[in-house]
Amino acid sequence: MKKISILGSTGSIGTQALDLLKNNNQFEVDYLYVDSNHKLLYEQIVDFKPKFACINNYESYKKLKELNKSNTQLIYGDKEVLQFITSREVDLALNAIVGIAGLKPTMGILKSGTKLLALANKESLVMAGEIVMSESETQNIKILPVDSEHSAIWQCLAGEKHSEIKKIILTASGGPFRDLTKDKFKNITIKDALNHPNWDMGNKITIDSATMMNKGFEVIETKWLFNINSQDIEILVHPQSIIHSLVEFKDTSIKAQLGIPDMKIPINYALNYPSHINIGLDSLDLSKISSLTFEKPDLLKFKCIQLAHESIESGGTYPSVLNIANDISVGLFLNKKISFLDIPKLIELCLEKHNYISKPNLDEIINQIEWTQNFIDSNLKDIS
Amino acid sequence: MKKISILGSTGSIGTQALDLLKNNNQFEVDYLYVDSNHKLLYEQIVDFKPKFACINNYESYKKLKELNKSNTQLIYGDKEVLQFITSREVDLALNAIVGIAGLKPTMGILKSGTKLLALANKESLVMAGEIVMSESETQNIKILPVDSEHSAIWQCLAGEKHSEIKKIILTASGGPFRDLTKDKFKNITIKDALNHPNWDMGNKITIDSATMMNKGFEVIETKWLFNINSQDIEILVHPQSIIHSLVEFKDTSIKAQLGIPDMKIPINYALNYPSHINIGLDSLDLSKISSLTFEKPDLLKFKCIQLAHESIESGGTYPSVLNIANDISVGLFLNKKISFLDIPKLIELCLEKHNYISKPNLDEIINQIEWTQNFIDSNLKDIS
Repeated sequence: MKKISILGSTGSIGTQALDLLKNNNQFEVDYLYVDSNHKLLYEQIVDFKPKFACINNYESYKKLKELNKSNTQLIYGDKEVLQFITSREVDLALNAIVGIAGLKPTMGILKSGTKLLALANKESLVMAGEIVMSESETQNIKILPVDSEHSAIWQCLAGEKHSEIKKIILTASGGPFRDLTKDKFKNITIKDALNHPNWDMGNKITIDSATMMNKGFEVIETKWLFNINSQDIEILVHPQSIIHSLVEFKDTSIKAQLGIPDMKIPINYALNYPSHINIGLDSLDLSKISSLTFEKPDLLKFKCIQLAHESIESGGTYPSVLNIANDISVGLFLNKKISFLDIPKLIELCLEKHNYISKPNLDEIINQIEWTQNFIDSNLKDIS
Repeated sequence: MKKISILGSTGSIGTQALDLLKNNNQFEVDYLYVDSNHKLLYEQIVDFKPKFACINNYESYKKLKELNKSNTQLIYGDKEVLQFITSREVDLALNAIVGIAGLKPTMGILKSGTKLLALANKESLVMAGEIVMSESETQNIKILPVDSEHSAIWQCLAGEKHSEIKKIILTASGGPFRDLTKDKFKNITIKDALNHPNWDMGNKITIDSATMMNKGFEVIETKWLFNINSQDIEILVHPQSIIHSLVEFKDTSIKAQLGIPDMKIPINYALNYPSHINIGLDSLDLSKISSLTFEKPDLLKFKCIQLAHESIESGGTYPSVLNIANDISVGLFLNKKISFLDIPKLIELCLEKHNYISKPNLDEIINQIEWTQNFIDSNLKDIS
């Protein structure tokens, strides 16, 4: 039995991973970690009998403590949880925490003796890709992609030489506003932006998909996961989300990974790598799909892609400020404090105004959170 | 330097292979073998300085002998050439002979001590797949696919486990008659049939593509090359010929190989396997392709697919008679002796009437040539 931990177990990726584990007798759940959804966490404790369960929110912790009649040991407290993660060795840790909160746990897992880290937390690589990859190398831990796009690239690279990669082509659905003219972007509502055409994901990621910042982040992640220059990573809009990404080799031969748009496929692949074990899904029937189409992304409409490209080219603290400013901006948008178009505007302002550090350490990266929050608080009224 | 031999060097695949070798300093050409094009063979002798050159046609041999001022030793005669091939060890032999004539040389190469056989001759596997694969195993020679479809499958299987294959999906352009209604098939001319929409190939293969027998043969080849049940091989019509084939794994994840429709890519891959070396081709730009479409093949229109499927299911001498009868029928069609619709009709009749042998040896397979030729000669007037 392989020991697995799931961080962010009540989120979209976490719940799907646990669904997969229900029919997979190779794993035992060692610990779960959630932010605040104590009710669902308790159901998961009952179903999966983890040795430990960590929870972030104090009120939720108290309620969970009342509910808990299991043998699962509860852990609460920023310091206590991080210390636990950093010292608890498992065979495979799945970090499916959404947002910046996922970074410290990633660093903890990398130091824990854990052998494999399935990384669904984009922010770890976007904010601190250099530090994370360098630590994974030092500790000899393999980082396994969970995102459908990176899983596709990873699958395409099986049995291939890194030196023969010519280009990585990240596909993008283009989000709900692919066909919307630029002049109508100012009227986009939260409801519009949460209406993703292909994937059922969490709110934060769905907004990132609508602004296409998601794809910008994925360029940055691709750079780090596959050790590729960002100039060799292309974004290709493919509205049907059937081809999840492609790799072109030096001879111009291209390999692609395709499938129904179901996150269970990449999650399952990361859990069972290198095996493609059957999880009872129906096959994709290409003859039933009228056509697969492709177009270049409109960089004038989707400013966030440009901001991400510029950030990774500039390096240092740029990608982390990009990520933090995006996180805060999306939160403000979801709370109706700013408009859809304010998201890139606010991010760009933060990037411009922050104090650039070329080789930041983890603290210097994390310090950007406070700076960016303060900066946005002070300047919000001037933006909207 | 690796020694290479090219059998069928003046044909479509052979000339493209030699073009690739012009810019590849890893190979020296050890021998060439052609049917009758002595002029082009002599140019190749001058350009590539092979140690030996074999030629099949006596008149051509005499003319070549007059022309030849090189150090290349000429070999003529059925027995002499086959004996030479069977005893001449090279690092890689490319068998690009078109048609049934390729079978004996394949068996010769397999016994020669040669390490790798790049097999562009479909007929070797269609006629004698079981014997060829068994001999390649005994002699420990790797057979490398050259066909674009099989090369695609091979590339998709890099780094993957055979046991995790769910299905192989062979793509087909559908040929020039994909949209033609069945009632118009009787009017198809040679010119119509030679007008392939995507690939520039030899006449025989172009007709096989028009009848879709080509795809039927590829199902049989796929079975042998990748050790897959024919029930797990699907044909998918994809008129743009951009996706060259796909493999579905047990988790429903699909890998595909894509590229511009240029045979140099699969030939180059077979020559340089496992490397994707740059040959100066332009990248495929998917954003310039309006769409990729897919449909199931119309088995009522393309009777040859059905005949091939039935032949591989029945096994024994069926696939060889299928192949021989097709070879003769296509020849008759190209010589205006029979109509396009007579091709499957004639093949079906041969399959029905032949004396079935369940485990034929090579002689019993080759004996079908004479039987089938005689049978067709005697019955041709009743067909058309």
